[in-house]
Amino acid sequence: MTWTVTRQDLLDLAYGAALLGSGGGGDPYIGRLMAERSLDRGRTVTVWDLDEVPDDGLVISTAMMGAPTVMVEKLPSGTEGVAALRALEEHLGRAAVATIPMECGGLNSTLPLVVAAEAGIPVLDADGMGRAFPELQMETFHVFGVSGSPMAIANEHGDIAMVMARDNWAMEWLARGICVRMGGAAMIAEYSMLGALAKRVSIPGTLSLGISLGAAARRARRHHSDPLGGLAQALAAASYRGPRLLFEGKVEDVFRQTTEGFVKGHALVRGYRSAEVMRITFQNEHLIAEIDGEALAVVPDLICVLAAETIEPITTESLRYGQRVTVVSITPPEIMRTPEALDVFGPSAFGLPVSYAPSCLV
Amino acid sequence: MTWTVTRQDLLDLAYGAALLGSGGGGDPYIGRLMAERSLDRGRTVTVWDLDEVPDDGLVISTAMMGAPTVMVEKLPSGTEGVAALRALEEHLGRAAVATIPMECGGLNSTLPLVVAAEAGIPVLDADGMGRAFPELQMETFHVFGVSGSPMAIANEHGDIAMVMARDNWAMEWLARGICVRMGGAAMIAEYSMLGALAKRVSIPGTLSLGISLGAAARRARRHHSDPLGGLAQALAAASYRGPRLLFEGKVEDVFRQTTEGFVKGHALVRGYRSAEVMRITFQNEHLIAEIDGEALAVVPDLICVLAAETIEPITTESLRYGQRVTVVSITPPEIMRTPEALDVFGPSAFGLPVSYAPSCLV
Repeated sequence: MTWTVTRQDLLDLAYGAALLGSGGGGDPYIGRLMAERSLDRGRTVTVWDLDEVPDDGLVISTAMMGAPTVMVEKLPSGTEGVAALRALEEHLGRAAVATIPMECGGLNSTLPLVVAAEAGIPVLDADGMGRAFPELQMETFHVFGVSGSPMAIANEHGDIAMVMARDNWAMEWLARGICVRMGGAAMIAEYSMLGALAKRVSIPGTLSLGISLGAAARRARRHHSDPLGGLAQALAAASYRGPRLLFEGKVEDVFRQTTEGFVKGHALVRGYRSAEVMRITFQNEHLIAEIDGEALAVVPDLICVLAAETIEPITTESLRYGQRVTVVSITPPEIMRTPEALDVFGPSAFGLPVSYAPSCLV
Repeated sequence: MTWTVTRQDLLDLAYGAALLGSGGGGDPYIGRLMAERSLDRGRTVTVWDLDEVPDDGLVISTAMMGAPTVMVEKLPSGTEGVAALRALEEHLGRAAVATIPMECGGLNSTLPLVVAAEAGIPVLDADGMGRAFPELQMETFHVFGVSGSPMAIANEHGDIAMVMARDNWAMEWLARGICVRMGGAAMIAEYSMLGALAKRVSIPGTLSLGISLGAAARRARRHHSDPLGGLAQALAAASYRGPRLLFEGKVEDVFRQTTEGFVKGHALVRGYRSAEVMRITFQNEHLIAEIDGEALAVVPDLICVLAAETIEPITTESLRYGQRVTVVSITPPEIMRTPEALDVFGPSAFGLPVSYAPSCLV
């Protein structure tokens, strides 16, 4: 199916993307404004279902890279995403028929829409993370052996760098250094692949999922119905499980550092009527939620901190002392829970000394 | 004139390059070994005088980039220089007819010889610094408005990055970040230009100068004649002035930090028969030599710390407490002392609050 994104879609997507961001990926609010500006300028965001991309067409993944704390202060000018795409196309000597979001959470759910609109190509309803992750090799693309290199990285001053790395870890390492020198956030184009391959290594339907999550939350708010129930329906339709209610309480402490190109730290949430304290550790995204050293949810499961009243997702950079929050978890589709996938973005990939168990299948 | 480099030339060049390194540029000993290995493998180092390069032939500058303290521990594998050259050629869609050293001091006097031998192209008897400088925009190429971008940077693992920066300062900034991520030292190819332009913006004869300085020191040692007199003759032939004897004494203190991709610090030298202390400040290279706050020599003049007995140049990373040293200065050719050149690599470019005066023309 080919469809175009409406303004209502963008509003809904901003909610869904924040949820799928698992606390990270940058505030989708900014991405929404940028996409709206593209529509204002008469551009169209055309979406292709994953199975619609021609097998022999070139697909290029686009995203913003950097620390969310930086992303919300150092906004993209809007031209660097297309600049990164064009630089990679030129290097490959071939034009892309479509772009695919690198991740479907946070700012990066909408920025590829802006790239698509401005470059005049469709964006695929799919992505390579099924959520947001902090590092460039944490992709299903990578799990299936696709090379992220050559990759292009561009900033708002017109500087462009290309990285041709020996493997995707080296790509992440070098690109992160460039990103830091570009001020902590930059637009990238990477994981170029043919359509046939993209169909095999991507998570389908995640753009629609973001929109339908937002629509579900909007309907629940309007009809004063159970919001988590609505989200559960939307998630189930895309092979996700959850949300599962993990904890309710008040943010008691936040330790947050912008370091090495990431936001790293943890938040403590104290239960309203108990002495229990949940500790949520993050690296851009929430990685693990623990009470008394026992993991209730861990990556690749999504851990989402929602404002208790509005069920709006709160990003790691917006966590503040005193916020009343509802912490939920979501278990992603099976493609993200294979042993090969867990090697890449499971607990051990983040140095967490726990083993993974899907929190929503218990 | 076309000529080939002999083993004796390499021995002499190691001395001359250390002198022209002004304390920096990395120990030429390693570069000499690499060049000798190329000769051992049956390769030839062909040298063209600057005026011999075809006006419409492409010239690419090659060098090692990084902190000298790192360069002496993390040796090049020998393949990354050619890899950087080839990556830039591929990006430009055109092969180089010759390579030109980025700087004629330190390790970088000989590494382009290795690139030339391995790539099968001549190296030009010229360079873009007339000495060694720590940053990529500190080039006569840059003084005359040549763009350093696109540039290629390659490491010993086969990783390659390309930088297309808005200007040469941004190129330095981004490339330095990549270099640090590559372990603090990497090979680069940059400042691609046509032969006609290279003739206008380069310092001619600096490879021969390095060799003749070494030959002069060797002859002085053999004949027990005045070594500084011999060096003066060689320098004068290439439009340099000096060496001027600035100070003699014992190294009393060295403060040295490998930071931000550079070696930064200072050394204190106490006079043998006086209470006078010379302070020599460096960023990879020696920048300024002062006694009691009065500058005796400052960039772009070369400040060379020689072992008192052997007149061997001592690099900043080899400075040690207790060394008996002779400190001399050399004033470079006029092309490096114009107001435009001083803007790029004079005292103010390093944040030194003094104005430049040629120390060997007083």
